[in-house]
Amino acid sequence: MSDNSSFGSTVKFGHNVKTLFRWTGSTYRLVWKEFIIYTMAYIGLSIVYDFALDDDGKKGFEDISAYCSKYTSSLPIILLLGFFTSTSMQRWFSLVHSMPGTTRVIASFVMSIKEGQPEGYQIVEQYSRWIVLGWALTFRLICKPLKRVFPTLVSLENAGLLLPHERLQLESEIASNHPIVVVQWNLALLKRCNRQGMFMDFSDYQRNQDNLMTFKKSCGDTIKFAAKNIPFALIQAVTITVYSYGLASLMARQLTDEHTPTSFTIRYFPVLNAFQYFLYYLWLQFGRLAAYPFSDDENDIDIKRLLQAHVDDAVRWQSLYSSPGLTEQIVSH
Amino acid sequence: MSDNSSFGSTVKFGHNVKTLFRWTGSTYRLVWKEFIIYTMAYIGLSIVYDFALDDDGKKGFEDISAYCSKYTSSLPIILLLGFFTSTSMQRWFSLVHSMPGTTRVIASFVMSIKEGQPEGYQIVEQYSRWIVLGWALTFRLICKPLKRVFPTLVSLENAGLLLPHERLQLESEIASNHPIVVVQWNLALLKRCNRQGMFMDFSDYQRNQDNLMTFKKSCGDTIKFAAKNIPFALIQAVTITVYSYGLASLMARQLTDEHTPTSFTIRYFPVLNAFQYFLYYLWLQFGRLAAYPFSDDENDIDIKRLLQAHVDDAVRWQSLYSSPGLTEQIVSH
Amino acid sequence: MSDNSSFGSTVKFGHNVKTLFRWTGSTYRLVWKEFIIYTMAYIGLSIVYDFALDDDGKKGFEDISAYCSKYTSSLPIILLLGFFTSTSMQRWFSLVHSMPGTTRVIASFVMSIKEGQPEGYQIVEQYSRWIVLGWALTFRLICKPLKRVFPTLVSLENAGLLLPHERLQLESEIASNHPIVVVQWNLALLKRCNRQGMFMDFSDYQRNQDNLMTFKKSCGDTIKFAAKNIPFALIQAVTITVYSYGLASLMARQLTDEHTPTSFTIRYFPVLNAFQYFLYYLWLQFGRLAAYPFSDDENDIDIKRLLQAHVDDAVRWQSLYSSPGLTEQIVSH
Amino acid sequence: MSDNSSFGSTVKFGHNVKTLFRWTGSTYRLVWKEFIIYTMAYIGLSIVYDFALDDDGKKGFEDISAYCSKYTSSLPIILLLGFFTSTSMQRWFSLVHSMPGTTRVIASFVMSIKEGQPEGYQIVEQYSRWIVLGWALTFRLICKPLKRVFPTLVSLENAGLLLPHERLQLESEIASNHPIVVVQWNLALLKRCNRQGMFMDFSDYQRNQDNLMTFKKSCGDTIKFAAKNIPFALIQAVTITVYSYGLASLMARQLTDEHTPTSFTIRYFPVLNAFQYFLYYLWLQFGRLAAYPFSDDENDIDIKRLLQAHVDDAVRWQSLYSSPGLTEQIVSH
Amino acid sequence: MSDNSSFGSTVKFGHNVKTLFRWTGSTYRLVWKEFIIYTMAYIGLSIVYDFALDDDGKKGFEDISAYCSKYTSSLPIILLLGFFTSTSMQRWFSLVHSMPGTTRVIASFVMSIKEGQPEGYQIVEQYSRWIVLGWALTFRLICKPLKRVFPTLVSLENAGLLLPHERLQLESEIASNHPIVVVQWNLALLKRCNRQGMFMDFSDYQRNQDNLMTFKKSCGDTIKFAAKNIPFALIQAVTITVYSYGLASLMARQLTDEHTPTSFTIRYFPVLNAFQYFLYYLWLQFGRLAAYPFSDDENDIDIKRLLQAHVDDAVRWQSLYSSPGLTEQIVSH
Repeated sequence: MSDNSSFGSTVKFGHNVKTLFRWTGSTYRLVWKEFIIYTMAYIGLSIVYDFALDDDGKKGFEDISAYCSKYTSSLPIILLLGFFTSTSMQRWFSLVHSMPGTTRVIASFVMSIKEGQPEGYQIVEQYSRWIVLGWALTFRLICKPLKRVFPTLVSLENAGLLLPHERLQLESEIASNHPIVVVQWNLALLKRCNRQGMFMDFSDYQRNQDNLMTFKKSCGDTIKFAAKNIPFALIQAVTITVYSYGLASLMARQLTDEHTPTSFTIRYFPVLNAFQYFLYYLWLQFGRLAAYPFSDDENDIDIKRLLQAHVDDAVRWQSLYSSPGLTEQIVSH
Repeated sequence: MSDNSSFGSTVKFGHNVKTLFRWTGSTYRLVWKEFIIYTMAYIGLSIVYDFALDDDGKKGFEDISAYCSKYTSSLPIILLLGFFTSTSMQRWFSLVHSMPGTTRVIASFVMSIKEGQPEGYQIVEQYSRWIVLGWALTFRLICKPLKRVFPTLVSLENAGLLLPHERLQLESEIASNHPIVVVQWNLALLKRCNRQGMFMDFSDYQRNQDNLMTFKKSCGDTIKFAAKNIPFALIQAVTITVYSYGLASLMARQLTDEHTPTSFTIRYFPVLNAFQYFLYYLWLQFGRLAAYPFSDDENDIDIKRLLQAHVDDAVRWQSLYSSPGLTEQIVSH
Repeated sequence: MSDNSSFGSTVKFGHNVKTLFRWTGSTYRLVWKEFIIYTMAYIGLSIVYDFALDDDGKKGFEDISAYCSKYTSSLPIILLLGFFTSTSMQRWFSLVHSMPGTTRVIASFVMSIKEGQPEGYQIVEQYSRWIVLGWALTFRLICKPLKRVFPTLVSLENAGLLLPHERLQLESEIASNHPIVVVQWNLALLKRCNRQGMFMDFSDYQRNQDNLMTFKKSCGDTIKFAAKNIPFALIQAVTITVYSYGLASLMARQLTDEHTPTSFTIRYFPVLNAFQYFLYYLWLQFGRLAAYPFSDDENDIDIKRLLQAHVDDAVRWQSLYSSPGLTEQIVSH
Repeated sequence: MSDNSSFGSTVKFGHNVKTLFRWTGSTYRLVWKEFIIYTMAYIGLSIVYDFALDDDGKKGFEDISAYCSKYTSSLPIILLLGFFTSTSMQRWFSLVHSMPGTTRVIASFVMSIKEGQPEGYQIVEQYSRWIVLGWALTFRLICKPLKRVFPTLVSLENAGLLLPHERLQLESEIASNHPIVVVQWNLALLKRCNRQGMFMDFSDYQRNQDNLMTFKKSCGDTIKFAAKNIPFALIQAVTITVYSYGLASLMARQLTDEHTPTSFTIRYFPVLNAFQYFLYYLWLQFGRLAAYPFSDDENDIDIKRLLQAHVDDAVRWQSLYSSPGLTEQIVSH
Repeated sequence: MSDNSSFGSTVKFGHNVKTLFRWTGSTYRLVWKEFIIYTMAYIGLSIVYDFALDDDGKKGFEDISAYCSKYTSSLPIILLLGFFTSTSMQRWFSLVHSMPGTTRVIASFVMSIKEGQPEGYQIVEQYSRWIVLGWALTFRLICKPLKRVFPTLVSLENAGLLLPHERLQLESEIASNHPIVVVQWNLALLKRCNRQGMFMDFSDYQRNQDNLMTFKKSCGDTIKFAAKNIPFALIQAVTITVYSYGLASLMARQLTDEHTPTSFTIRYFPVLNAFQYFLYYLWLQFGRLAAYPFSDDENDIDIKRLLQAHVDDAVRWQSLYSSPGLTEQIVSH
């Protein structure tokens, strides 16, 4: 009934502290440029107030400060960000977990072709290459870094994913139809295999169709996700809100004539204002992720690496078809 | 364990700034008319106060302003909008992802008909046309723009989706039954194909039934979504709240006799009031989307384009049945 | 990458305004009686204060008003309502989408019976009638309006859903077992069809079992939903909170001796108090829907209409079995 | 497009009022003991202040009261409770809907055994008894009331769910393995039926395995739910927060020297304090449900009744195997 | 319609009180070290103020206190934590419920091998060992405690999960490919079984492939979960916020010159400050769980125990293949 006792003391003392000082992938790295600009602007305004303004100017400055203070405290910014960010992170998680995989569709095909067929290995190779090609064409539509790696169909041909005569046929279609054309090729290949009696059983013909359709739907959902995402106007509205909060918080300060340490602190160390603003700013950045999940630079490597992993896996599953090799030795040991 | 390091520095410096100045599909485009009216009304009221009212009138104006200020700060509007909008956007996302597709049901049928049948191609064409017809009849029920494109069954006949004798039979039924009647035709077609031994295997007869039933359920769920959506009274309540907030915020202002720059700003540049109101107003608009996902003008093109895509795909899958063509050449290369 | 541009300008200028003045299914219709009572009580109390109380009484009245003001502003009512209503609306949506359907289970049976069987049509009719009967018996348990239409098994017999000798057997069981008994009949019918070789293929025997079991589970889930719903104590707690807020807000007012227009407004036009209260009140009503999804009067027609739709559909699917009729002509055109 | 008009006027005038005065399963019944204690403590403290303290004591009392007032208004208790309770109610709903059922696994087995087998009925009886036994052994692990009904395996034997030689084998295993051992028996039974050719078709052997595995997974998930639930430390943290709020709210009061009706009310009718506290307290109780879904007394009957229902259903499905009886007559009418 | 009446009175009077005083897995155990440090620092600062500072120092201290008070009350920390923690707990729950199981994939294989095959038992043993090995290799990648138990492949060999020649082949691959290599072995084994006609039916070959693919996907999802989790920058941002709140709350206090009991309490018993801070701190800890679900010490035992359970179950299912033993006797009783 209660294994959950162990749940309580999960985090060791001091573990959190280590979290605070990590730089890689950190909060600090994310905001340090903006932070320097913000701080300099804040201090600059304080210098203007202290040294450049006469009494009338100071009065006006104080009025505007008070107005900005009211403004920053009235904006219902945290709830806005909360709803926006939790919605968009949920979408990001669901995207990550629904991205199309190639394992099942390839392995299932390889396992269902009769052994020792004359063209067997070529067909297995063709089918799995087309699956990986379909994956690459899908992400080329929605992921700028991959588009940069494969700007044209020729570059895909050079990478060995596409043959020249295949490229010619693809070029007669618009880019958004490319993945579906490749699925069509695979369906035709399935039909041919069935016609030539290459499947172990007729039901394999059907199973491979189903797997291919699931793969197609998964590609389509990923494209749909990128196209019908968080509406731009919403992202813009939240961005405007956070930035205008930032601008107002630059001015928002309690100014007094006294020259106490506190008043000096308030003027030259914008801890509270900066902290709140950068909290909102970070929150906004997390929320933006769902809108552009594939377009950031550092993920570049990721998507390319992912494609490489799919290529490697395809080779691995193809080897299941080939004559007894290492794997076979393992099995019959 | 931690690829997530890359996650942190997703957004490049300055990237947000670009977001602020985009016009297409922007926040600005969404509210600029309302914004002009709001600002003019606000300034108009200030002019009335400054130049048209005597002292008693000013006193009354100030009283009402104070009351409106209290009103706007008491309304729990942001939470109301938060719950409303997150509920309704979730529904919108789930709708987008559950809209019926035609690929699986058509492709699966084409793949399961024996090659070289006398009427084979006609039957494949008939089946896939009826699937697309079912899709169109479904969205005609719930999507005003599509209804405008196809106001009558004759217009569908002109578009080549319906044959004259089919239209006659559809006309004997009420519109909400049209999609189900077309599903019934397809079931009868499946039965006939089975009777004439056109399926490669008996199990194909069953698989196509299952795919058809899934298609039918998906159409039904889409209609149900449009019919049993966010209740109108709830949308109205939220709309009333936002508008009454807007009216109150037109009057809500701190009025003083002093003629400082600040007091002038407050009277003639309604930054704070307008900002808050339009934030709420935008939030409301996003929430309304779920209630009328198919009725807006700009999506017109979308649904029509979507229908065209389904028609194109249907042709594509049909071609899988035909005698060796381009696809076949690709496959046997 | 960004079809979402179209998403932004979804709502046309002035569209919201139309929303405000609709009466059917509106907010106004939902609260007008309560609103009149509330307003009269509020004004009544103001009259008492202005004309019926002496100075001591006025002092006490002011004290109580101040206390009530504090009370209304301290109650964390909006968050309470927010969590309650979003939970309960989610459940309502999930109920609407998981209600049992009859199409798949009936159509699949009809399609799987060999044509030209001696008793074929009778069996198809019997099976589909029992499915609709199971649906009706399920909703009779949880939906008061349907219970009112079919108070006894005899009424179901009169409606043609039940035969006399079937009714006799049902009457020997408690009402909550009725749906499961009917499922049992259908299972026995499937067995008999299999014994007599009426299925096209043995696998049809299994598929129909699976469909029947899915139908049974769906009925059971609907009953479970009605029985294990939002706990009554929670609904009561939220209701108490809203009503006590309403009572306190009747008294809560800032009273001053001055006779300015504002003070008159506050006393005789309870805009702010009433607005907040009815916002909460409406919010509560939406939340209550999940608790009693089948018991309201206006939905009466809905459930009865739904049953009629299931009956009509059953007839439609049965016609797939019969000799070539209209459908057949359509197909073989 | 808009059936939702009917949605708006769901709740009849006065319907809410009835909700307020129900006692069964009510809020009142849930808190009346605590409420009496709270009120007595509150009034007791007021009596101490009014009659037992001298001026210095009164001053100290007032100081502590002010401190407690600040404390109660600073605690972010409502959001804490909101997040806790909505998380835990979601888990409760998901538990209720994923509890293992016995219908599909039993009925499917009964339907797949050839009729007229020598040992047929005994095997059907044995299989279904073991399914129900597996259900009982699962809930015995996590549900205290059921554990109380069946403290030992002997008690299960007495209830007819277990045979003596089966009990002997179970006793050689630890309790948490009991459900899985029974699943193993059923798998062995399936194997034996297959070996003896008792299934109508080989595919029945596979289907019954799948159903059994789904039943096993469902049992395992239920146990996992009870073991890996809301962490205890979280429940404790929320409980501490609510209780400490309660203690502070006993003292929190605005004390003045005046003897107006209001000050008397504040001292002796703790409406506001009590209301807020019991709102939080109730909210906490709803949240605790997910942590201990099977351990409360009143649900005792429920789980026992549920077991009885499964036993009854098992008998019902077994009867599908037997020679033509009542059901058969219904079918062949 | 309303079993939910029983729902209301779930928690017995006094049950909550017991919750408050449990130590195992408790809140207290989670924070006591931090609590002592916090309290000592707080009191230390009070001592400094009372005894070490002169009037100017006191003035400065008071200024900083006031500033910190403002800081702590302005931070929107509770909403930040609420959104963070509910997101991350949802992910934790979904992880727990989607962890790969070994039962279905092993049991299904054992049930599908023909009895009395020459190498039958060895193959069953090999297949199930590899499944468990795949599970162990998956969790070795993401769970530090298991990595500590099995630091090298040799340690897995010593544990009997890996044979020497298998280890050699694994060592030629990078660690992240290990699980997929083992799946590949199993696929090859399935192929060999099919080639040698060891499956009862051809469809068993397909079913076991499907089960294996589901197992593979489940392993892959678990790895993906660990790799693409809550972004580190978000965890860091929330951690910084909570710690900076803690630091500020150490200073935040209302200081007065008076020496009343209250002022003494405020200085030396930091009840309110500490309570709020530790509430946030705890909330943070629950949220961190999703980020590092497998790395805490106390769960060590858990994962090892889980592996042992999978090993034990594997043996149990293998025994279904062996010659009639205890299980067989049970079945044929």
